[in-house]
Amino acid sequence: MTRVVFDPHRTHRLHFPDLGCEVAGSEGETLFQAARRGGVRIVGACGGRGTCGSCMVRVAQGHVEDPEGEGSGGHHRWRRACRTKVRGDCVVEIAPRSLAPVARAEVGHDDTRPLGRDPRVATVDVTVTPPSLHDPVADVERVRMALGRPVSAVELPAARRLPGILRGHAWSARARIMGDLVFGFSPPGGATLGLAVDLGTTNAAAFLIDLESGRRLAALGIENPQASWGADLISRINHAIQAANGAEDLRGAIVAGLNTVVRDLCHAVGADVHDVVDAVVCGNTAMHHLLAGLPVHQLGRAPFVAAVRGGMDVRASDVGLDICPGARIHLVANIGGFVGGDHVTALLGTEHRWSGVTALVMDIGTNTEISLLSEDRILSTSCPSGPALEGGHISCGMRAADGAIERVAVVDGRVAVKTIANKKAIGLCGSGVLDAVAVLHGAGIVDHGGRLIASHPDVGEAAGARFARLAPEVHFTQHDIRAVQLAKAAIRTATDLLLRQAGLSAAAVDRFIIAGAFGSYVDIGSGVAIGMFPDLPRERFEQVGNAAGLGVCRMLTDRADMARAEELARRAIYVELNTIPEFQKEFLKNIRFPATPQ
Amino acid sequence: MTRVVFDPHRTHRLHFPDLGCEVAGSEGETLFQAARRGGVRIVGACGGRGTCGSCMVRVAQGHVEDPEGEGSGGHHRWRRACRTKVRGDCVVEIAPRSLAPVARAEVGHDDTRPLGRDPRVATVDVTVTPPSLHDPVADVERVRMALGRPVSAVELPAARRLPGILRGHAWSARARIMGDLVFGFSPPGGATLGLAVDLGTTNAAAFLIDLESGRRLAALGIENPQASWGADLISRINHAIQAANGAEDLRGAIVAGLNTVVRDLCHAVGADVHDVVDAVVCGNTAMHHLLAGLPVHQLGRAPFVAAVRGGMDVRASDVGLDICPGARIHLVANIGGFVGGDHVTALLGTEHRWSGVTALVMDIGTNTEISLLSEDRILSTSCPSGPALEGGHISCGMRAADGAIERVAVVDGRVAVKTIANKKAIGLCGSGVLDAVAVLHGAGIVDHGGRLIASHPDVGEAAGARFARLAPEVHFTQHDIRAVQLAKAAIRTATDLLLRQAGLSAAAVDRFIIAGAFGSYVDIGSGVAIGMFPDLPRERFEQVGNAAGLGVCRMLTDRADMARAEELARRAIYVELNTIPEFQKEFLKNIRFPATPQ
Repeated sequence: MTRVVFDPHRTHRLHFPDLGCEVAGSEGETLFQAARRGGVRIVGACGGRGTCGSCMVRVAQGHVEDPEGEGSGGHHRWRRACRTKVRGDCVVEIAPRSLAPVARAEVGHDDTRPLGRDPRVATVDVTVTPPSLHDPVADVERVRMALGRPVSAVELPAARRLPGILRGHAWSARARIMGDLVFGFSPPGGATLGLAVDLGTTNAAAFLIDLESGRRLAALGIENPQASWGADLISRINHAIQAANGAEDLRGAIVAGLNTVVRDLCHAVGADVHDVVDAVVCGNTAMHHLLAGLPVHQLGRAPFVAAVRGGMDVRASDVGLDICPGARIHLVANIGGFVGGDHVTALLGTEHRWSGVTALVMDIGTNTEISLLSEDRILSTSCPSGPALEGGHISCGMRAADGAIERVAVVDGRVAVKTIANKKAIGLCGSGVLDAVAVLHGAGIVDHGGRLIASHPDVGEAAGARFARLAPEVHFTQHDIRAVQLAKAAIRTATDLLLRQAGLSAAAVDRFIIAGAFGSYVDIGSGVAIGMFPDLPRERFEQVGNAAGLGVCRMLTDRADMARAEELARRAIYVELNTIPEFQKEFLKNIRFPATPQ
Repeated sequence: MTRVVFDPHRTHRLHFPDLGCEVAGSEGETLFQAARRGGVRIVGACGGRGTCGSCMVRVAQGHVEDPEGEGSGGHHRWRRACRTKVRGDCVVEIAPRSLAPVARAEVGHDDTRPLGRDPRVATVDVTVTPPSLHDPVADVERVRMALGRPVSAVELPAARRLPGILRGHAWSARARIMGDLVFGFSPPGGATLGLAVDLGTTNAAAFLIDLESGRRLAALGIENPQASWGADLISRINHAIQAANGAEDLRGAIVAGLNTVVRDLCHAVGADVHDVVDAVVCGNTAMHHLLAGLPVHQLGRAPFVAAVRGGMDVRASDVGLDICPGARIHLVANIGGFVGGDHVTALLGTEHRWSGVTALVMDIGTNTEISLLSEDRILSTSCPSGPALEGGHISCGMRAADGAIERVAVVDGRVAVKTIANKKAIGLCGSGVLDAVAVLHGAGIVDHGGRLIASHPDVGEAAGARFARLAPEVHFTQHDIRAVQLAKAAIRTATDLLLRQAGLSAAAVDRFIIAGAFGSYVDIGSGVAIGMFPDLPRERFEQVGNAAGLGVCRMLTDRADMARAEELARRAIYVELNTIPEFQKEFLKNIRFPATPQ
């Protein structure tokens, strides 16, 4: 299936035969930017800055400009997509290792609990008598009479489709109703599907659900294509503010990505995208605003004010999502600052775990959100934790593939590693980063301040910067360690200050619930060892996977859960860390590693 | 002010320096089509078929193709816009006589009655305290708290504008509210305007109203730019059905025309188009469907079924009307067949005249709508009456300008005419057509069957077809007379059958209310003389001007009138003439002129 993302400003056609798709590119932009915006799953570990070499492509035909010159191999050589500028229509091949795998989107360890069966969209099939000169009642009025329920209005997108459907399907049609509003019509038969999206800064997970049975039919994860404008929220907000059309670049990229996902999901289950009649999307406040086309200028500058906090129902067409014409998207309410709807859904998805006890719910990611639940109070905050913990922007970072270091140990004082498939070590995969730091610190190769000990035989120096040699070609640098330190300090400081706001000590936390994809494979011991987590009994920690994904699926399938999410968001009190005087001092203290390895 | 109607498929820029505007044209389309679509007021009496020569232009610069060749005058000669194809960017001059005047839109003879002051849009000004790190409440929630009234939702287009308005206007904003829905925000101050549109097949009249005072600020009439695809409804419906993108051609043309009118109206009163916060549009069913983007296939074929009959509130952005983002357009309810919202508003605008008596309300145009009001019954029908009565598609037709024949008499057995400004006769203006036929028939130059009497000294023959010589160069042809006969027969037959349906005779009609622009200058005596109207005492006829315009203005300014219009539309019973067995016989009978000149 060939798809064309049409845009009048983008005049070049980039054809990706391996993927069976075509996207539009602008004169002079990079192949990487165009591909990412068009939803093509090209890897870009450094976000398109030209520092990682993970986005390799070959231009089979067409005009490109490559500042690195033609070099060996001429037109057909492998080149970095992020350095290659589009100068005409092209046919592009993506290197197998640069093609991001289609991730199976997980919905957390609680996904065996049944979803609800009380969605907000009702479906009513009607058959009417055909009109005649003696009975020329209009189509909409004819169907309204047959619906057998009061309807306040039939909306325009629905009315536009009705005459064709009635005449093409023996005077039958299927009405899609929300409240007392008919928002869509479709041919009789077919599925009644819903889309739940957990829109993260780095990745998005989408779930296709049969709204009649509450069954999850398919799930798909993609990298957030906005990553080509920066890995973190602030880079993207800055692009939105500073670049001409910047906000629209970002909006268009994620919308194109989601439309690709919806098509792929529907294709996988043999459904039509127009069978998707409802959608719920959660994301942090910046993702929420960028998707909705809300301005982010005021969100990126103190005092960091959102345009909207509450949940919103918007038309899918207002956002550009290609599902049933007239369908709504519910954008989950935010809490405050950057703590958005994805944290609300994480709270919803873990409520059976924190209800009645004192608990922390933490979702670790490029931005980390934390809530403290105690008695009837919910205190929430967030901190920027960067991509380092997940292996992003780490000099030797790579995805989990053959040759990736997944475990680091110090044996007899020397660094030893285990790689995937026991192949020659070529990089460090995300899940290994935290463990590497914990092990290096535990063995004294990194001191309490985070400095690599120059005298250790596995520590080297290049261009004045030290590194730990994990393998002959895999260097873990001082800079990488600093990035982990900053991240863990931010998380720990936010946790401690939240507890202090509530007048609680860490020991009072009965459950420490770690949600999110990264959180499901983090080693709790390593996290405690480097001081990212307080030193609680291990059984108090619960790693629950993508609770936000579970929560957003539940909102889609059960109106009570949708109302509950709105209530949780309204009840949660956002704590702005910048207003707490001791924040800076605590943060600096927490950059150090604990004096006593734990 | 230069405006550009942008469309990615239209790559040529047509600049009209005299009008200070630029429109986009497609390769190979005619200058006439492009100009009309872009809202340029170029005359086209024949609708662009190349038969009238009323659309003369000169191409000062640029590439065009003219099948009539360059001829004398080379590049700069005058040529017909409807024969000239666009082949590149052009600079175009329109001949003064081919530039349609900006009509003053009239709202009927009842326009001294005050308009209501109960519009459905409420405006509330708010000022909020600025946010801070200690009070980072989101903009929408901050304003909601300050509104002092319950609000169910703040819609996305409103939320998108709010942060910029608050920060640009000292934390003040003006909320636009419909029901309990905030649909828009604007800067504080400025006007609160409404737009009422009477969208006719041939002309559209638009009224700009101050919703606070109920005062009509400005009015403007334009030719309906869809005329380039045919003067009558069926031609346009056929274009919509048969041409690729045909419906969108027609929709785009009228939307561009209306956007031009809105800009011009707002410019005239020093307002911004975004100050227009509500709109009501009435039109016949085909105009309604084409504007709303509703399919017309089923409307153009028996049994002529509308997609929607009832009134609809649609987002202005769904239609493409550039007013306050988020504002609604109310599309007035239709009655049935082609009897649309413009007839409903005509009924509303004349209710004080027909209430309590037996009355006919007739709006004569390219399509003529008629209602019979008797006791609590409303019977409505319509008939195609073509453009001939108004001087359209008449061989010698022209607009009311110097040299146009405005009166025809027979003096001493010979035809005599009076022209505007007593200049040499060069054509027959619309208002003179009906009178010419009546006079020619009354003098026996046309017989009861409609044939010109060959033996009369003012009757000639060319190419086997007779004509009456009104002036040396102004020939009124047998074909023209036939067109008038068909129109008047249709109108009379519809009137008679409506009366028969109600069991009434023409004599029972207390008031014969003639609404519409044409109806305000038609000579009742001539109409009776040729049998278009029944021979009632003259004082029962009331010519009330544009009652539809008055009615649509009242709907905009008074919620009770909006509800009343919906009720009238629902109560009116549509009579399908094609279901009445005697229709054809009556019609053929009515083609003849009355035996006794009256």
